Amino acid sequence: MDFHYNPIKVALYIGNFQLILLMEVIQKENRNLPDSSLRVAILGATGAVGSELLELLESRQFPLSHLKLLASPRSAGQVIQFQGQSIEIEAVEPDSFKNIDIVLSSAGGGISRQWASTIVSSGATLIDNSSAFRMDSNVPLIVPEINPQAILNHSGIIANPNCTTILMGLAIYPLHRINPIERLIVATYQSASGAGARAMEELKLQSIEILAGRSPSPEIFPYPLAFNLFTHNSSLNEVGYCEEEMKMLNETRKIFDDPTLRISATCVRVPILRAHSESVNIEFKAPMSVEQATEILNSAPGVKVVQDWKRNYFPMPIDASGKDEVLVGRIRQDLSHPLALELWLCGDQIRKGAALNAVQIAELLISKNCVKSQIAKTF
Amino acid sequence: MDFHYNPIKVALYIGNFQLILLMEVIQKENRNLPDSSLRVAILGATGAVGSELLELLESRQFPLSHLKLLASPRSAGQVIQFQGQSIEIEAVEPDSFKNIDIVLSSAGGGISRQWASTIVSSGATLIDNSSAFRMDSNVPLIVPEINPQAILNHSGIIANPNCTTILMGLAIYPLHRINPIERLIVATYQSASGAGARAMEELKLQSIEILAGRSPSPEIFPYPLAFNLFTHNSSLNEVGYCEEEMKMLNETRKIFDDPTLRISATCVRVPILRAHSESVNIEFKAPMSVEQATEILNSAPGVKVVQDWKRNYFPMPIDASGKDEVLVGRIRQDLSHPLALELWLCGDQIRKGAALNAVQIAELLISKNCVKSQIAKTF
Repeated sequence: MDFHYNPIKVALYIGNFQLILLMEVIQKENRNLPDSSLRVAILGATGAVGSELLELLESRQFPLSHLKLLASPRSAGQVIQFQGQSIEIEAVEPDSFKNIDIVLSSAGGGISRQWASTIVSSGATLIDNSSAFRMDSNVPLIVPEINPQAILNHSGIIANPNCTTILMGLAIYPLHRINPIERLIVATYQSASGAGARAMEELKLQSIEILAGRSPSPEIFPYPLAFNLFTHNSSLNEVGYCEEEMKMLNETRKIFDDPTLRISATCVRVPILRAHSESVNIEFKAPMSVEQATEILNSAPGVKVVQDWKRNYFPMPIDASGKDEVLVGRIRQDLSHPLALELWLCGDQIRKGAALNAVQIAELLISKNCVKSQIAKTF
Repeated sequence: MDFHYNPIKVALYIGNFQLILLMEVIQKENRNLPDSSLRVAILGATGAVGSELLELLESRQFPLSHLKLLASPRSAGQVIQFQGQSIEIEAVEPDSFKNIDIVLSSAGGGISRQWASTIVSSGATLIDNSSAFRMDSNVPLIVPEINPQAILNHSGIIANPNCTTILMGLAIYPLHRINPIERLIVATYQSASGAGARAMEELKLQSIEILAGRSPSPEIFPYPLAFNLFTHNSSLNEVGYCEEEMKMLNETRKIFDDPTLRISATCVRVPILRAHSESVNIEFKAPMSVEQATEILNSAPGVKVVQDWKRNYFPMPIDASGKDEVLVGRIRQDLSHPLALELWLCGDQIRKGAALNAVQIAELLISKNCVKSQIAKTF
């Protein structure tokens, strides 16, 4: 084939090239971000965890170029203040995730299932706070202090574990890493916040009513929670364990990458607003002294050892509320078993139990350079 | 020696005999009792347990010939209604226990220690709700449904066990009797009432204050209990267990007459008014099925099995309050051990945990005919 300099073709070629360059500039302008800044959407922005996510993105100076707040049509139009700007909440729809790098979803399993494939095919990475994908073998289930390496294998969805599981994991994984755990027996004392902001409100209003001598009917919870407690309000399986208890078993096994770890849990809802507590009996494969366990936990990430034996002062929900760390104390020898220790922990259910862990996963994505849009950029 | 009918002596003899008969009649009149009725004193009549003792003596139609109410000088002079009569509270003093058959004491260990020898030397039997004499080898420690036979050996003092221990004992002894328990791991959810009526009031007032946005200082408890929880407020031993936890260990061993039973307990105070809950993990020496355990507990004295798996309805403090029985439910296989079961219980701390058990001990004394004054009568 003959090759001729066709001036029209050359002009078109140069023009196309300029257009491509221009598009790049415009796109970059629109994103208004340095390379490491991300466009984030919060799905479920009006809930208890959604509010905490906003607070954390701000206080942790998350590298954010754009923040989109999504919720149900019911909440659309509400305006939320963020870093001095007013952001209007949008109803989630198929186009919501275009030009978004990370979606932090905290709107329940149904919503996550409904939008996950749209999110992933839009090129965003979903960090999902629901239980929808946690046990999916293609989805990493991550507590950044425990199994950050699992993030390398994500395919667009990363699951944020169950709150009670995260809190226990932080306290026991550092011990497990040194001396494998044989068996865990745990009893929980779980706050209203695990059932959302409306459940917290119900606890407060119900307390006022009961103190005034009235008998209000519960709406969010199946039974009154004020001055009462009951088995965790999730459905029971055929052998009598509720979903929350099975999450503690199955999710801990997945996060620890230890599929035979033996766990028996009893999950109980107590009239506390926003921090969960747990009594944990840990049987190790080999002896571990109280001193060694305390020393390990003193330097464990995300853990703060709180135990003043003389004052009988140990972790309490009012002290754990609003804190990043899980508070661990009463580390003591189990009097009934030479290889077992007992410990007690409290952690903020909304914060490290949900929002903080999700934001930490997003930060881990950035530091490992494995946000999907970042991966795309490297090609 | 000659025998003469001396009319004066005969007259005196007959007179003396009549006098003796008369004294007997007067004495009986004063006691106003059939032979099985008893003169009872309540020491600590104004407390939470004291009030419940009064209610129980009345509702159980306890065979009572006389009721004396004793308290500190601070409460003396107060008038309490009982069976339609007004009874004035008296300050306890050395003569208080004369002509008393049974003393039900619920005024704390110090008061019990102070008055025990006076009570016993006055000829009364002390049923003591404090921990003062529980571990004394000469003092039977009794839950009538578990070890009624121990009452036969009393020497004037019978101890009423710790509330948390009584409630757990009722639920597990019927199983232990069939298939010995190897090891217990228990976490408790204990109400304010365990610390008395003023502690219950503190929880209520504190809740009102907190709901109004204020931060009240606790007075009875070391830390705020409203919307909070903390390690049981009893002193800690050198290995980190609080007194309440050691009571569960030592008292259960004594009541079960099993000095090597292995128990590890975590006792926690929760913002509940008057019923304790416990999560109990029971490892048996031999396998026991959930069905067998349920069947045993279905016919166990003092126990009511409450479990509606479909409704996720299990024992709750609001249902246990004011009930005689300990409510037991969620009887299920421990997923971490083939020989272990899990169960959950709630019981009224003031009632079966204290006052009811004490009254049952008094009833047992009568039925076994071993009130000290009754024993004396048989000679």
